[in-house]
Formats: sequence, structure tokens, C-alpha cells
Amino acid sequence: MKISVDFIPGGGVTSPRGFLAGAISAGIKYVNPGRLDLGILFSDSLCNAAAVFTRNKVQAAPVILCREKLIKNTATAVVMNSGHANACTGEKGMADAVKMAEMAARRLGIEPGEMLVTSTGVIGTYLPMERIAEGIEKIVLSTNGGHDLAQAIMTTDTVPKEAAVKAGDFIIGGMAKGSGMIHPDLATMLCFLTTDADVSADFLDKVLRETVENTFNMLSIDGDNSTNDTVLIMANGKAGGEKIDSGSPQAALFRQALSDVCIYLTREIARDGEGATRLIEVKVSGAANTAEARQAARAIITSSLVKAAVHGSDPNWGRVVAAVGRSGIELDNGKMEMSIAGTCLFKGGTPVPFNEEKVVRRMNGPEVSITVNLNIGSGEATAWGCDLSEEYVTINSDYTT
Amino acid sequence: MKISVDFIPGGGVTSPRGFLAGAISAGIKYVNPGRLDLGILFSDSLCNAAAVFTRNKVQAAPVILCREKLIKNTATAVVMNSGHANACTGEKGMADAVKMAEMAARRLGIEPGEMLVTSTGVIGTYLPMERIAEGIEKIVLSTNGGHDLAQAIMTTDTVPKEAAVKAGDFIIGGMAKGSGMIHPDLATMLCFLTTDADVSADFLDKVLRETVENTFNMLSIDGDNSTNDTVLIMANGKAGGEKIDSGSPQAALFRQALSDVCIYLTREIARDGEGATRLIEVKVSGAANTAEARQAARAIITSSLVKAAVHGSDPNWGRVVAAVGRSGIELDNGKMEMSIAGTCLFKGGTPVPFNEEKVVRRMNGPEVSITVNLNIGSGEATAWGCDLSEEYVTINSDYTT
Repeated sequence: MKISVDFIPGGGVTSPRGFLAGAISAGIKYVNPGRLDLGILFSDSLCNAAAVFTRNKVQAAPVILCREKLIKNTATAVVMNSGHANACTGEKGMADAVKMAEMAARRLGIEPGEMLVTSTGVIGTYLPMERIAEGIEKIVLSTNGGHDLAQAIMTTDTVPKEAAVKAGDFIIGGMAKGSGMIHPDLATMLCFLTTDADVSADFLDKVLRETVENTFNMLSIDGDNSTNDTVLIMANGKAGGEKIDSGSPQAALFRQALSDVCIYLTREIARDGEGATRLIEVKVSGAANTAEARQAARAIITSSLVKAAVHGSDPNWGRVVAAVGRSGIELDNGKMEMSIAGTCLFKGGTPVPFNEEKVVRRMNGPEVSITVNLNIGSGEATAWGCDLSEEYVTINSDYTT
Repeated sequence: MKISVDFIPGGGVTSPRGFLAGAISAGIKYVNPGRLDLGILFSDSLCNAAAVFTRNKVQAAPVILCREKLIKNTATAVVMNSGHANACTGEKGMADAVKMAEMAARRLGIEPGEMLVTSTGVIGTYLPMERIAEGIEKIVLSTNGGHDLAQAIMTTDTVPKEAAVKAGDFIIGGMAKGSGMIHPDLATMLCFLTTDADVSADFLDKVLRETVENTFNMLSIDGDNSTNDTVLIMANGKAGGEKIDSGSPQAALFRQALSDVCIYLTREIARDGEGATRLIEVKVSGAANTAEARQAARAIITSSLVKAAVHGSDPNWGRVVAAVGRSGIELDNGKMEMSIAGTCLFKGGTPVPFNEEKVVRRMNGPEVSITVNLNIGSGEATAWGCDLSEEYVTINSDYTT
């Protein structure tokens, strides 16, 4: 039986019961000083919580702090800002992160140990602590405050990214930010997931890691990852019902619902990649195993040449085949089949004649699919990214100065 | 005693004694049909030869053919074309490569086994064999034909890349092409090196591999490598003197001279990267070992964000530190020192205040240096690349169509 998971129109992190949020413009951002840039996500009761952080060895102060706080696998709220990443800021940066969490905890009347903190923005500048202190006092929380909060975490994002699904008795909500410095192994990416399902801490951690592996870790905008990347999930149990654990009847439903939310947010980040004009979805099948399928899909989605070709609606399939070859996976050139936008262009080791006009027309759409079947095994993987445009360079060659 | 190696002004592959070359416009190129696109490099006697090829698992027909021919470590000539890579062209592509070598060998009156063949250009199209046959008959070889030949191998290159050095009694000449699809582990890159030194086949192979590892394999334009990358060296012994082997007094001199030519050509390729406006040189020191220094240098030089920042003369040093962190090497954030264009921007885990105007002005030059001292060991490495410009995207979003 197919599990039924339904998207909630206009849903977000405050869709699950018991979650409130709010955000204000505290004047933290250099660029666009009038935009929302400080906010809080709050659950009216203690949550089981799990998170996945950047694998970058240079880690921002808020990441180091959240790692410590999450050792006990619980949290009640998160205070978050955009504009400054609070990374490469030494001891002062760590003291600032601790203080920011303390101020927010005091405001909400909770223990500092239950208050997480995240930052995103420029690396190597200090947080403007006075503005943050003033801002925290002014934030108003509400049950539909998720939309403002989704805007407050944006940096070069052009649109907020939010989703919520209903599955059985529970709801999972999510929001994400990320546009540049996005790469497998996470990114300049933040994602906050909320649920009113009652989920054990162990299962929450396990299912989050699995899901991130197949969604955000298969996303690349530009090959860089950041010092601040965080995917956090908080479960407050407000939906009632039996606790969900690995062996529960509801475990598969929760996994499917979480995967749906994360795939949706992954695709939205890819679509909104810095300078992007179209989403690219790469599916690799027939690989020797899953790891090799992932490796090949990531090599294709990270190729600047493939991304530039898609930007120009250019069916330059040789670049895709070269990327697969470069990925280092096991392959038999003669068995490989490769399609762009649904048209097979390479098979049996030789080019397949094709109607160029038709393929170019299909590539002009908002989404371009690239599929590779290696025909040697059963490994499968999907990766998401976007085209490489002149605009990407323009955005990134003038950011701090 | 410092070994004396002198660059020969206007030198190239025909600078060493006994080498001739020639090229013509055979109408092979789609784009710029009037440009030189077919040529031959010829030694008037049999050479010891060694080559390093692409590690891409999808290899072009001429690469597969040259690998076979070079098992005996000798060669007399190379026929080469640009415009079509003859890659992903199956059995017909291999038959075409064999035929192209045979035709050129017949023209020069040598054994087909002594004639190598290389191609560069678009992947997945067949060579126009009639034009190649006609063209081969018309090529005229001369002792100053190296300059024409260096032009005939260009694709998106804007300038030919040539060099020659004199060291003691012998000369080493070289030419290279490469502008996009350039990455460590070689690239859409061809490099032909000639010398009149008498070098044993074993030492020639060994010293070529060592040199490529520290030069062309530390070069990245865009993170892609290709199906056709080849670095070939031919030594005809015309300079006379004792044979050079690993233990010879001349071995160090030959190694130094070869390294000088290859570093020069590597920098020229980086400078002429697709859309490049400036050369980037990344030096990493103080790493745990050489391998880790190389890994960190490559992570920095391949970062789209670092490259875009350099394009905008933006001292966004956080992107460099994040790239080092992402590289996976051993590091202590508090010990790292990082400079851009000679100014230290990050030290002791915190930002160093700097004169932004001065750094921006220095970054506006034709070369930008980035140095990272990890201060934990003695590993060192240098990598070369270029900035990422809007023009790179324009070039690569409209190539085949």
C-alpha cells in the first residue's frame, strides 16, 4: 500500500502543533539593511531534537555550540540571524554565540541549555551584539510566524523555501535557506524541520541522517560547502499517538514524509541557486552499487561545463560522459546510455543521431533532466543542482566589498 | 651551485636540434574554419618517448592508440588536429585514428608504429577524414614550424603557449594547449615536449611523471578533465654528450630544465583559462605532509567562490579558509595564517584588520597570490588557476550549437 503524504498549501515550520515563530529587521545585514534578519523558532514544550552539521573542518561558533548543546538530544527553541556567519571569529565569536543564546532564552523564559543558535552570512566578521540584543527583545512569536522566519534566514536567496506535509496524524514542517556555497556534504545551507509527531531521539537522529544523505547531500550549486551548514529537526509530540521508533508501524510513514519535505526543499534550493535559471536533476542507474551511483551523479551535477551547457540549452552530451569518466567509478563505455531532457544521445559507445532543435527546445524549460544508465549493476542515485550563469559570477565577485 | 637554465626567446618545440614541424588550415574546425587545425611534429631520427595520459575512464581513440604505440617507448612523429576530439566515437573513431596515423606515416616515409596521433576539440563527433587526408598531403615541415603547430592545436585558447630552455649542451622545447575543461589529473590539455638531449627511456618516463605531478596536475581552470589529455616528450639525442639516466651527473640539470618549461606552460595555460582576466597562484606550506599540502592547494584553486572573489578583486578571505576546511586535511584553525596578494588577513583563528583599499588595488594586477601556512608540518605545494568570469559562462554555454 502506498503511504499517503499530502503537502499542506502554504505550510511551513509553524504548521505542526505547538510551534511558534517570529522575526524582525534588526539591521544586522550589510546588504539590504531593511530586510528581516533575526528570528526565533519556538516549541511550547521540550522537543526531542537531532541535527546534521557541516563536515568542513573550519566550523562556525554557533555550530560548535549547537553540537555541545545537542548531546542531550533535546531543544525548545532556536535563535537565528543572517548577515554574519560568526565563523573564523575566535574566542570572541564563541562568547557572542553563547550570549546570543542566553539573551533569547531569558526572553522566552527557558533554560539556556534548551536554546540553540544559528548564523549565516559573511565569514570573518563579528556579530553586532547590541543590535541583536535590542532585536531579541522585539521579536513577537505567533503560530503563523514561520513565513517571516523563512525570510529572516535568507542571504542571496531570492525566495523563501518552505514546506509542510500531513501524514496520518502528524505534520512535518520545514524551511531552508541556501543559494551559493552549496555542495554535497552540506553547504551554506540551513534547514529547520519541525514535527508534532512523538519521535524517539534515537530514531529521529537515524532517520534525519538517512534522509540528508539522499537529499541535501546530493545537492550542489557551486562545489563549495560552508562553515555553518546545519539541518535541525525538532519533534514535540503534540500530535499524540504512539511514540515512533525504528520498529514502530509509523516509522515508514515518518521516513517517507520527512523525505518528501527534504526533497521538496532540496529542489527549491537548487532552483534558487545563485544566478540559476533552471533546475538540473541527474539520475544515475545501473551502477555497480549505490555509492558509485552517487559518485557519478555528483560528478555530473558539479561539472561547470555541464552546468554552463545546460545554461545555453546546449545538448553537449560529451561533457556529461566525460564527467562520468572522471568520477572514477567502474564503467563500460560500450554499455552506457545517456539522455538529456528525455532524448537518448549516447549509447553503445557511439553518438546517437538526434533532432537537435527538439532537444534544445526541451532544454529551454525550467527543469532539465540528465539520466545515465551504466547497465552494469543496480546502484541508483539522484542529484540536484542548477545551471551556471554569468549572473552567478556577478553575484560572487562583489559580495563583501 | 645553482643549475643554470636559460629561456630561449621565441623558442618552442622546434628549438631543439633535429625537430621539424608544420601546420595548415584543413577546414576541420566548426568554429573559425580559417584557422590552422592540422599539423605534424617530426624528429629526423627515432626518439625515446614517454607520455602521461588522462585518468578519465572515458578515453578518446587517439589516447588509446598512443598508449599502445608507446609500449616500446619510442616515436618519430606526431600528427595532430584540433576541432574534433575523436572521443566517444566507438569503433569508427578508433579506425579513423589508426588511418590518420597511417596516412601521416606514409607521407613522411616512416613506419606507422612510429607515428603518434592526438586530437582535441568537441567530444562525440567523427573526424572529417577526407579533409584530414587532403590536409596531410599539403603540410610542409620546417625547422621553425613549431609556431604554426602551436596555433594548430588551439581550441578556445586565445594565445599559443610555447617555451624553450637551454641547459648545458641540450635544449628542451615545449608547446601546450588548454583553456577549459582543465583540472588536476590533466585536462583538455595537450602538451608536446621535445629535447635533443640523449635521455634513457626509463629516466625520461620517470622525470616526466614527477614533473607533471607538480605542474600540470596542479593546474585547474574549471574542475573538469577530459578524454584526450596528453603530455608527450620526445628525446632524439642530437645534442650529443653522455646519455642521461637517473644516476647521471646531468640528471638534476635535465629535471630542473624540464620543470622550468612545464611550470612556464602551466602558468600560461592558467593565465589563458577560458574567460580568465588574471592568474591565481596558491602556495600552501606547513601542512602535515606534501599530499595534504597538495589537497589544500587544489581545494582553494578549484573553489568557484574563491575564483569569483578574485575576479572582483574582493579580499573575501573567509572563502579561502572555508575551502581549506572543506579539503579534509589535518588543520588547527588557531595556527593557520592566510594572505592574499601579500597581506595577512587571518591569523590565530581570528580576522586580521587590514587596509582594504590597498589589498583591492594589489588584487587588480594580472597575478594574484594566495598563501596559506598551516604551521603544523613541512608539507608544501603550489597550484595554479584563474579567476571565474562572466565570460567563462558565455564561452561554455554556447559551444556546440
